[in-house]
Amino acid sequence: MEAFFNPRSVVLIGVSRHTGVGAYNGLEMMQRYGYRGKIFVVHPEAGEILGHRAYRQVRELPEVPDLAVLALGRDRLLGVVEECLAKGLRRFIIISQGLADADLRGREIQEEIVARAKATGAKIVGPNTMGVLNAFTGFSTAFVDLPRHPEPPPVTLIAQSGAPQVGAESFVGPLGQAIDLGNAADVDFVEVLEYLEHDAHTKVIAIHMEGLRRGRRFLSVAGRVNRRKPIVILKTGRSAAAAQAALSHTGSLVGADEVFSAAFARAGLTRVRDTTDFLDTVQAFRKLPRLKGRRIGIATPSGALGIMAVDALTQEELAVGPLPPRITAQVEPLGPAWHRLHNPVDLWPIGMKTGDYLALLRETLVGFLQHPDIDGAVAMLPALSSPLHRNIIAAAEFMASLELARYDKPLVVSVYGDYREKLRQELEEVPGVACYFAVERGIRALGHLYRYHQATSRPLETWESRSSYASSPENIEQRLTTGGAGPNLLLGREALDFLAGYNLPVLPGVLAAHVDEAVKAAEELGYPVVMKVISPAWLHKTERGGVILHLSDETLVRQAFATLASKVKELTPEAPFGGLLVQKQVSGREVLLGIKQDATFGPVVVCGLGGVQTELWQDVAQSLAPINREEAFGLLASLKSYPLLTGYRGEAAVNLEALALALCRLSHLALAEPDLVELDINPLIATPEGCWAVDARAVFREGRMTPGSS
Amino acid sequence: MEAFFNPRSVVLIGVSRHTGVGAYNGLEMMQRYGYRGKIFVVHPEAGEILGHRAYRQVRELPEVPDLAVLALGRDRLLGVVEECLAKGLRRFIIISQGLADADLRGREIQEEIVARAKATGAKIVGPNTMGVLNAFTGFSTAFVDLPRHPEPPPVTLIAQSGAPQVGAESFVGPLGQAIDLGNAADVDFVEVLEYLEHDAHTKVIAIHMEGLRRGRRFLSVAGRVNRRKPIVILKTGRSAAAAQAALSHTGSLVGADEVFSAAFARAGLTRVRDTTDFLDTVQAFRKLPRLKGRRIGIATPSGALGIMAVDALTQEELAVGPLPPRITAQVEPLGPAWHRLHNPVDLWPIGMKTGDYLALLRETLVGFLQHPDIDGAVAMLPALSSPLHRNIIAAAEFMASLELARYDKPLVVSVYGDYREKLRQELEEVPGVACYFAVERGIRALGHLYRYHQATSRPLETWESRSSYASSPENIEQRLTTGGAGPNLLLGREALDFLAGYNLPVLPGVLAAHVDEAVKAAEELGYPVVMKVISPAWLHKTERGGVILHLSDETLVRQAFATLASKVKELTPEAPFGGLLVQKQVSGREVLLGIKQDATFGPVVVCGLGGVQTELWQDVAQSLAPINREEAFGLLASLKSYPLLTGYRGEAAVNLEALALALCRLSHLALAEPDLVELDINPLIATPEGCWAVDARAVFREGRMTPGSS
Repeated sequence: MEAFFNPRSVVLIGVSRHTGVGAYNGLEMMQRYGYRGKIFVVHPEAGEILGHRAYRQVRELPEVPDLAVLALGRDRLLGVVEECLAKGLRRFIIISQGLADADLRGREIQEEIVARAKATGAKIVGPNTMGVLNAFTGFSTAFVDLPRHPEPPPVTLIAQSGAPQVGAESFVGPLGQAIDLGNAADVDFVEVLEYLEHDAHTKVIAIHMEGLRRGRRFLSVAGRVNRRKPIVILKTGRSAAAAQAALSHTGSLVGADEVFSAAFARAGLTRVRDTTDFLDTVQAFRKLPRLKGRRIGIATPSGALGIMAVDALTQEELAVGPLPPRITAQVEPLGPAWHRLHNPVDLWPIGMKTGDYLALLRETLVGFLQHPDIDGAVAMLPALSSPLHRNIIAAAEFMASLELARYDKPLVVSVYGDYREKLRQELEEVPGVACYFAVERGIRALGHLYRYHQATSRPLETWESRSSYASSPENIEQRLTTGGAGPNLLLGREALDFLAGYNLPVLPGVLAAHVDEAVKAAEELGYPVVMKVISPAWLHKTERGGVILHLSDETLVRQAFATLASKVKELTPEAPFGGLLVQKQVSGREVLLGIKQDATFGPVVVCGLGGVQTELWQDVAQSLAPINREEAFGLLASLKSYPLLTGYRGEAAVNLEALALALCRLSHLALAEPDLVELDINPLIATPEGCWAVDARAVFREGRMTPGSS
Repeated sequence: MEAFFNPRSVVLIGVSRHTGVGAYNGLEMMQRYGYRGKIFVVHPEAGEILGHRAYRQVRELPEVPDLAVLALGRDRLLGVVEECLAKGLRRFIIISQGLADADLRGREIQEEIVARAKATGAKIVGPNTMGVLNAFTGFSTAFVDLPRHPEPPPVTLIAQSGAPQVGAESFVGPLGQAIDLGNAADVDFVEVLEYLEHDAHTKVIAIHMEGLRRGRRFLSVAGRVNRRKPIVILKTGRSAAAAQAALSHTGSLVGADEVFSAAFARAGLTRVRDTTDFLDTVQAFRKLPRLKGRRIGIATPSGALGIMAVDALTQEELAVGPLPPRITAQVEPLGPAWHRLHNPVDLWPIGMKTGDYLALLRETLVGFLQHPDIDGAVAMLPALSSPLHRNIIAAAEFMASLELARYDKPLVVSVYGDYREKLRQELEEVPGVACYFAVERGIRALGHLYRYHQATSRPLETWESRSSYASSPENIEQRLTTGGAGPNLLLGREALDFLAGYNLPVLPGVLAAHVDEAVKAAEELGYPVVMKVISPAWLHKTERGGVILHLSDETLVRQAFATLASKVKELTPEAPFGGLLVQKQVSGREVLLGIKQDATFGPVVVCGLGGVQTELWQDVAQSLAPINREEAFGLLASLKSYPLLTGYRGEAAVNLEALALALCRLSHLALAEPDLVELDINPLIATPEGCWAVDARAVFREGRMTPGSS
């Protein structure tokens, strides 16, 4: 990656002779940005562009540059890449659009280029990219004339667009380095992260992501890098992701966007909700130490702003900390006799009296920051340009004099007034303080800091490959070829037996093809029993009357068999009669457990409210498989219906330990069965004694499981 | 109010001799702001301040000024107000802090001042206020040196703090006028709104609200004014409001903050969620025409930003509109052959080719705005200071040339890049376009515009006084004095009879003191029946086993009576045995209906999921009483559990008409019974035939209902 971020020499191919306004000439921009390495230009006719001799052909170049930047029409790309490879070039930034971003033909070209490059060990950034920006060395491949930061901060952006580079002020704040992966046909987030892990100019990593390949590898690498260099992610495309089709409850209840959130949370990464949050949170990580607890001290010149701060803290699940005695002792006596201090500390009545607001603010902030029961502070600061308020607008100098580094606690300042933009710029230079134009924005960023602290206090996970998970001893292949439900579907008894093969607790039951078998089964299982239609045509069997409960003797079992068998014949005459499932009747809480295969992250395990109200409440929680006991308990506890499991309104609690164990085992099954697409256990009945899968369905990859294949 | 916003003469009392930095001298600020009316000063010793003769006493003033501005210590206030009243002064702005904002003594002083003023017909703004700002006339009472807007916009702020005036740029944008009500001891939101309704300088009203008196009067006036002059409200103190204590389900399920939201929504007012939303939404109302539909056209120089826009539209329940054929015809042919346009329209591949991004943007925006299937547009605009991009930064001129007023549709522009602040200022001058630094912020404001359009398309409501609601023919007084539940509590049969007095459907039942009465009741009602313990000590009777269902014959009734009677004796020996309620057993959906008295808005009617899972899901909706049939249907439809009522998974739908009628009648009861504090009907059983209140409790004001009172 070094050749991308810091090339000693670069060749530009496809650069135009036109320069100036409207030309978007990459060479012109590179010069203006201040690149000091060697620049070569290839152009078939120009002879010379902007003072650089233009070589007519790649092969004429006098040396092999570190990097080629290609901005050609898509139809010429492949040929030029081949010439470059022949010349010995191995690093490419392909600016050109019209590849996989456009249509099928573009995708074909892109794939061919990547294949050629891979065959020689070459690497490609893009296509459809603005390329790389390095404010430290003055290197930029942008076709836009970007301002270069004079003292670049240690923030690196990895994006899938040039817009966050062009509008850094709106998306991430000042940038040290940036790379636009564009279509990410070759170089991806993982490769860049691995490079940035050891890059001295990177301390915070901002990611704009539209899609992701190698999801689990990304989590392994990002999770590790994030421990030392916080990673803040704006993942867009929520609405598109939400529209994915799904085959089962589990699939429809958990959209791909929720899986991204669950996966990032699992790896301890910070996901922001929009571009404003992106900007604010990157600033917080860039400028502030960690927030190690929830307790915040607030200093304000207005009670009204204090209330707004408390609203925002509540929203972020942060807390209004106690008022340190030092503040009561040092600050309160300076004010009017009637004025009592609380947190938020309203300083105005005192400031009006003493005339020196900043002196009071100093005492208050120091009082907060040095107190062990306060984890961070928020100050509201009016910023007015009037010379009559120059005592207040000296705030940046004042903040610097606080020597905030001594306290190792974050301080967020919310500034307002006509001088606010200038004050923000001044505070940019003061370490240990982050400046926002709205108190809610600063406090939202504190919320991210605190969640980061919590997430990175847990042990780091690695994401092992599937190969370490042994598949079921009971061969799934055989079940599918002998079961009646279909070539890629397991239902009822077959599905339960499949689960039992992974030591999941299943309710004993027998698939009875004839009425006498049903009676025998009922007697063996013990009355009362339930009977259910098992058929791919009866997926919603309860609504269609395909389940009969409370069968307490032989007569009732015989009646029920006749009723159900004739119902099947009447309603779905075309479907094969697979028999009726006879199960012991147990009662308890109905829970849904499930697996879905996420396109990015692979197997996801899901739990939620089961039974007939599953779709109504959509009360589910999900995490990537595998999960351990602690994570299983965490998932269960995050359900809104969790109180139903822990002894709702005086009832006995279900056996949570058994439930958590079932979730863990399910998550191992998810990894051991690579061809499993979706699996629902609904319901799993949980009781104080244990839990049992009562009904299940498992869908396998289409085509794979036709009888006779192996 | 004219004397507050536009006084011809003003007297300042309590102004200091100190001026300059740190003095916060109101006279100095008033002069600097440009006030041209007569200024008088009263000071016991100064002789002269800032060129104004200081009168030693109020009575020495040569005339009676329109307005007095008082900034005195709290202990001197009352005396000075009395002197002013004696002089004939009738309008006061009391800047002083330390009144009801501080402690009990301060509250007493404040109340006494207000009482004296009211006795003479005088009006007071404040105390604890920054007072009034009028950029049109140059009048300001602020003790802060505020910049005066050269061309004031028709935006008026009503706040309960000076901070939104001081930091207008952060809270509301440019201001024409502002008033800080402070403690709002006398002049309140209603009075100011009534004035602004006819004020030529006011077209948009921004409200910062901490609390509200005269809630229903406010809704009547604000609802009316809002039709012509949109009202945007930042109501703070969410978290404090959420902490209110409550006695019942209904009370605990609906916090005061939710009632504010429901009340504002009912009146069609726009409530924003934080200060950023406040700023953005006021700008939208100030600068844009109404958004009359959901369909938005998007023009972007980056596919990535288009995705962000779609995410934001989805969040706001707005829609990506169709692509007008004109855009396909006029714009697409200018780009590369492979480039197909969709909405969002990605213009960059074309702009790179033609070099004239703004020309493409013009075609695209005009194409969107003139198309009947598009209701509004969003454009992303890079703003770069480089001279190489001066073709793009001419955007303000370009926008002006579009003559947006022709289309009567809102256009939101999201700008990014190092020139963004300047471009924002330039676009400020262009009518019909609103500028934001983040696309999500602009689209959130569009969401408010659309909801405003919807809300103001409904008929305007007025909020009648309680006197038009007749109370129950069955005297509540008598029920409470003869009932056994307590002096201010109705339970079980008594509560149901109370409801029946308002024509609410209640399940027939009999309170049986003896077992033979229970059997007789069961036979009259028809088997099966249920029996329930009725006692103030058994509020959660289900969990304690105080309810027995499925009593299908006399023997079972006798057994159940004995069981329950002995249980009561055993578990609550101290409580009086009020008998057992015998009711016909009906089965259906369990619904909760309720009433709570909100401290600000009075009676609120609530509906939600009933039965034992009420607390678990907290699925409730609320609105101010009274409601009509349409509103009742709206409330029911807004429940997450609504599908349970409309025929969930093949079941029959309940009788929604009967349920809505019950809600309407309940809302009338709420107004007719002024001493009702809270009422729960839980459950009300809804079936396809109708609905019936099965259990209820009503709490009346403490102290009022002692036996013997009348």
